[in-house]
Amino acid sequence: MIQEYIHKVQYYETDKMGVTHHSNYIRFMEEARVDFMDQIGYGYDRMESEGVCSPVINIECDFKKSTTYADVIKVSVKVIEISQIRIKFEYVMRVEDEIVFRGTSSHCCLNKDGKIISLKREKPEVYELFLSFLETDEKL
Amino acid sequence: MIQEYIHKVQYYETDKMGVTHHSNYIRFMEEARVDFMDQIGYGYDRMESEGVCSPVINIECDFKKSTTYADVIKVSVKVIEISQIRIKFEYVMRVEDEIVFRGTSSHCCLNKDGKIISLKREKPEVYELFLSFLETDEKL
Amino acid sequence: MIQEYIHKVQYYETDKMGVTHHSNYIRFMEEARVDFMDQIGYGYDRMESEGVCSPVINIECDFKKSTTYADVIKVSVKVIEISQIRIKFEYVMRVEDEIVFRGTSSHCCLNKDGKIISLKREKPEVYELFLSFLETDEKL
Amino acid sequence: MIQEYIHKVQYYETDKMGVTHHSNYIRFMEEARVDFMDQIGYGYDRMESEGVCSPVINIECDFKKSTTYADVIKVSVKVIEISQIRIKFEYVMRVEDEIVFRGTSSHCCLNKDGKIISLKREKPEVYELFLSFLETDEKL
Repeated sequence: MIQEYIHKVQYYETDKMGVTHHSNYIRFMEEARVDFMDQIGYGYDRMESEGVCSPVINIECDFKKSTTYADVIKVSVKVIEISQIRIKFEYVMRVEDEIVFRGTSSHCCLNKDGKIISLKREKPEVYELFLSFLETDEKL
Repeated sequence: MIQEYIHKVQYYETDKMGVTHHSNYIRFMEEARVDFMDQIGYGYDRMESEGVCSPVINIECDFKKSTTYADVIKVSVKVIEISQIRIKFEYVMRVEDEIVFRGTSSHCCLNKDGKIISLKREKPEVYELFLSFLETDEKL
Repeated sequence: MIQEYIHKVQYYETDKMGVTHHSNYIRFMEEARVDFMDQIGYGYDRMESEGVCSPVINIECDFKKSTTYADVIKVSVKVIEISQIRIKFEYVMRVEDEIVFRGTSSHCCLNKDGKIISLKREKPEVYELFLSFLETDEKL
Repeated sequence: MIQEYIHKVQYYETDKMGVTHHSNYIRFMEEARVDFMDQIGYGYDRMESEGVCSPVINIECDFKKSTTYADVIKVSVKVIEISQIRIKFEYVMRVEDEIVFRGTSSHCCLNKDGKIISLKREKPEVYELFLSFLETDEKL
């Protein structure tokens, strides 16, 4: 059972409009994704030690409601698509049960030479692991 | 004639993969948008002095090619959609004429009380200004 | 009894040298200071609601040892000096009991008009609160 | 003749106090130092290609006056100390000729194995280069 990731908004993450600067949500997505991968047993440390890196190739964000300093953001992460060469995560962020942000990130996997690899073929056990966490992208 | 915006990648914008961290492109988009608005004569300073703020409501990013420290990124900005309550910008970033990033940001406008306003009705001269820079979203 | 503050280093906080970028320690200091003030019952929220802000006027940092992604940094905070118009905090950061960073920050207090105020005179209960946490600056 | 470095404060560098967040000055110091080293002909790229890295070991900052969005900060950089194993830079930042910040950073040099090296012995031409730019630390 995957635990939600918690991020408390820091003062330095706000801007002069008085709210969390929108660029920081991309960072909260990364924090939550890294935590998700730790929880399922394929942390970034292990991934990188296996010579794999997983750059972001696409991001989509809907900013629903502003947040600000000291807000406690709960982030839930799901795998919503997986193909041989691409994996897509969805993130829903809430403050006190109200959705403040919804976004997705898509990633490919590269080997040490920077070539795109097929997870399914070259890391089948990792592919199966992500597949076991796949959820269809039903709107919450 | 709108000038491209130039951002030279800083050391602190890289990550341990050796490349520009993807969250920074959201910031480069903001830098370029602010510069675009200065160039057309409706800078953030003027906007805020008129009691308008223009939060980001949606972002979409395609990361085409990594960049790194000292790369000189040229950002071109276009208005690609405008409605009564929403304006959408497109950003194309290049390093030495190769596209490294393409993204969009959508914005609404709020008054001092945080209510969404219709630019067309409440700031018609600003609406007309953006409209005069509207370009159809043909792929480059 | 003040609890140490914990910061787990995020991927986006590293740079292409493979280590935590040094500017981030200034942010960890802020995170820990804010947490300290929450713990003693004078959180930033209360401070700001009372119309006080407390800008940083000086910072000193000794970077003892690099840290990197996923390191768990424990930050201890102390009040080491307090005068009518100035308060100084010390921060010691450790990873697995090894000191990685030591720094200080000095702050004044401003009222709503941006004038420096004497905490002792204008917020005596806050002055007394900080004073009760004052520790001499003995080297650990 | 060394040119001043220019940094225009970005919106995302402000915080909810309405001013440039203090942690960003550390980044402006880096930007200006990197630019200084480019100007004297020993850019980070060359340094890193020679297998040298130059971590920050100490930073001291005096925040004199707040800055905010769209301020144009002019940064002047000087070498104020150099020894066999340590080099110290001073930074003075001005907005419209008023000093807003003064700081220093001290650096050592490491080889590929992460060992401290003596610049004077192992990179004498680089040592001489920095020495030729040494200025005594008279207060401006």
